Amino acid sequence: MIDSKIREQLVAIVGNENYDDTISGRLVYSYDATPNHQELPDAVISPKDKQDVCQILKVCNLEKIPIVARGSGSNLCGGTCPVEGGIVLLFKHMNQLLEIDKENLTVTVQPGLITQDMIKQVEAAGLFYPPDPSSMKISTIGGNISENSGGLRGLKYGVTRDYVLALEVVLPNGEMIHTGGKLAKDVAGYDLTRLFVGSEGTLGVITEATLKLIPKPESKKTMLALYQDIEAAARSVSQIIAKRIIPTTLEFLDKHTIRAVEDFAQIGLPTDVEAILLIEQDGPPEIVARDIQHIADICRSEQAVDVTVAKSDEEAEKLTTARRTALSALARLKPTTILEDATVPRSEIATMVKAINDIAIKHNVKISTFGHAGDGNLHPTCLTDVRDKDEMERVEAAFADIFAKAIDLGGTLTGEHGVGVMKSPYLEWKLGEAGIAVMKGIKEAIDPNNIMNPGKMFAKELKKRVVIGE
Amino acid sequence: MIDSKIREQLVAIVGNENYDDTISGRLVYSYDATPNHQELPDAVISPKDKQDVCQILKVCNLEKIPIVARGSGSNLCGGTCPVEGGIVLLFKHMNQLLEIDKENLTVTVQPGLITQDMIKQVEAAGLFYPPDPSSMKISTIGGNISENSGGLRGLKYGVTRDYVLALEVVLPNGEMIHTGGKLAKDVAGYDLTRLFVGSEGTLGVITEATLKLIPKPESKKTMLALYQDIEAAARSVSQIIAKRIIPTTLEFLDKHTIRAVEDFAQIGLPTDVEAILLIEQDGPPEIVARDIQHIADICRSEQAVDVTVAKSDEEAEKLTTARRTALSALARLKPTTILEDATVPRSEIATMVKAINDIAIKHNVKISTFGHAGDGNLHPTCLTDVRDKDEMERVEAAFADIFAKAIDLGGTLTGEHGVGVMKSPYLEWKLGEAGIAVMKGIKEAIDPNNIMNPGKMFAKELKKRVVIGE
Repeated sequence: MIDSKIREQLVAIVGNENYDDTISGRLVYSYDATPNHQELPDAVISPKDKQDVCQILKVCNLEKIPIVARGSGSNLCGGTCPVEGGIVLLFKHMNQLLEIDKENLTVTVQPGLITQDMIKQVEAAGLFYPPDPSSMKISTIGGNISENSGGLRGLKYGVTRDYVLALEVVLPNGEMIHTGGKLAKDVAGYDLTRLFVGSEGTLGVITEATLKLIPKPESKKTMLALYQDIEAAARSVSQIIAKRIIPTTLEFLDKHTIRAVEDFAQIGLPTDVEAILLIEQDGPPEIVARDIQHIADICRSEQAVDVTVAKSDEEAEKLTTARRTALSALARLKPTTILEDATVPRSEIATMVKAINDIAIKHNVKISTFGHAGDGNLHPTCLTDVRDKDEMERVEAAFADIFAKAIDLGGTLTGEHGVGVMKSPYLEWKLGEAGIAVMKGIKEAIDPNNIMNPGKMFAKELKKRVVIGE
Repeated sequence: MIDSKIREQLVAIVGNENYDDTISGRLVYSYDATPNHQELPDAVISPKDKQDVCQILKVCNLEKIPIVARGSGSNLCGGTCPVEGGIVLLFKHMNQLLEIDKENLTVTVQPGLITQDMIKQVEAAGLFYPPDPSSMKISTIGGNISENSGGLRGLKYGVTRDYVLALEVVLPNGEMIHTGGKLAKDVAGYDLTRLFVGSEGTLGVITEATLKLIPKPESKKTMLALYQDIEAAARSVSQIIAKRIIPTTLEFLDKHTIRAVEDFAQIGLPTDVEAILLIEQDGPPEIVARDIQHIADICRSEQAVDVTVAKSDEEAEKLTTARRTALSALARLKPTTILEDATVPRSEIATMVKAINDIAIKHNVKISTFGHAGDGNLHPTCLTDVRDKDEMERVEAAFADIFAKAIDLGGTLTGEHGVGVMKSPYLEWKLGEAGIAVMKGIKEAIDPNNIMNPGKMFAKELKKRVVIGE
């Protein structure tokens, strides 16, 4: 509850029209794309500009009111669920593309800008912003930065972190800092830019960002390789890289995902195969043609039952879009979809996919797997129903096993979705007590009153690590 | 002074042969490549392995003894000068390449490995580690990580930070943490990997690192463009990027540097021009040929007086090596060489080079400029003599003006050399009070007893910012 005096102060900052504490307004922002997490905020505030953000944070810091900065809420870790109430901060008035700088190859944006809208404007200028989270049609760039979003082009081009050059951040105490610049090289002190990237709104509020762009690739080609054997698909992935080809995209879909996607998108995907690799290469046309030929040869020699190269841009777009719809397609099948992003070294993909299947059988749950095979970032996806308490317990146990296995294989429990509230009980499995202590120390130094997205990343209750097979 | 009881404990950890507190032994490590900074350490210790490092740090933390981890001391910011005494830590027993993983494209190393030795082994495996600081023949990879070293290939490939995937770090309290993994994607908590990269030994001791590799480019070509007009050279840089070509290397040398290099290396550089651009492109041969042709056309249309492409690998190597010797070549001319690395957005290079020349005249000092024009990272280099107190004051005033100008142009006071003790009085100009406060908070959270490289990054006395022209 925000008492009436504080409410007055906040309304004075943003105006009545940007302060919503109606029950219906609060309900809308009580949850995000993550199933099974809901909590009402006390108010939903839309700052008009960065000065408003500074003032709001000053009030909240003094009064110890939690603040959850929120883009489109498309995250899958419960990252924007206001688990301790307080204020949800919206950026509908701070959603502009401020500048495309063609000489320095940068774009400067406000946090509320939709990722795909930015990408379209950037591409119209002949430039390219590679990170392409599957949610990019609705996600905001502020959300992408806060979660360090990945995407389908991560193998070749890296993730959001690799493209953030400068940030304007309002600290919990209401002071503003500027990190980095339009600079490829900057070593003036600790790398605060990358500390804020992926910090999930727990350290400050990003009010502006300058992102690195690269020249738009001249051309691209897309192909599909079909397999009756998952290990053959995984071997193909390893062989492509071993032959020193780094495709833009190297996606894996298992049979459950293929069927769901085909059922949903009806683009003619074969539904009688065990696995598909969706592969894309971009660059100068002659190099793309050469690489795609090499990749096709490798897939065939690794027992792909069929290899087809998209004949037109439209056909290619259809295939990529099909992959992007995987989550939506699967989500239709059951009331609840839980999609995780356990990530392993590329060499361990076959082992991990097999382990996921074994774990699903062990716990008697249904798990489909798709994801970014090229960078070891898999999306085991469980179709279930939150109302079925017994099954939900088995689902949770299965995912705990999946996290444990990923970590055992040298991987991590989250490759691109973030920790949020979902994975916070498991974070210590990856980082150890000492690693968590360092992160907590940083959090306390920057946000001593714990107002920034409290309840995220650092769990109150830890899960016990159960070693598989014991 | 380390008292005899503590001395006994430290000797018990590493053995007599790895503990040196003779005056001659200490003298060797009382300074690094940075002029005008010298302070005796109390002892020089060479841990045998990571367990030794843990134990040494435990003792030092308890006894509040400063620790300066040191590679080859080739840094240019006084970063490894033990300004508060204590222990200098050497890594001569921890200098192995532990693994090249061809499937995951990674190399795992100990901190004391020489950068160029690692690069050679990596290239023998058909792989490529792009960061190439000019000091790579003698620098260690641990030093590169601690300073976030740049190099000549930064424009296309980025800097050390962009290639560090995982770190093993011993914290000041002697506990060990592991960050990251052989993973392109990992968002499990704050990005500690990149917090330690470039932290200049102020947060912990790196005992192992896993670095990202990429396939070795198939071919490369090197060219020189000569100019009678610095602005024409700068315009060429802008035009190359504007035409969407990102060369591997785009180096600038002014006439003073050219003359010094030619005098030193005698490779036939013309000494009657105002500026040279050294340009390198790598990749598939047909693309390299095409890009080099485009670049040559651009340089000619921007009034380059001559453009030549190296006819053989040997000739190319000679040109690149010549550039790498710029510092050594200049250093021969006067007793003291002070080389800085003020960095500006690429679009501001011409303005910055001109400003540096004006500042040199204003303060009556001699400054040569060379550097990485493609990424705006310039190396204004002052030839002077530390014994000339009057001139040294003017040199310092000139560099203060250079830092101020770089920051005014949206740049930074250090692009790749680090803050160390040299630039710590100026850091606040870039970061502001609030930025410094965040960094200090992080430092205090991780190293509450301030034993890790104390006296670096955070200055006791700040320089007053004087706005140029006032």
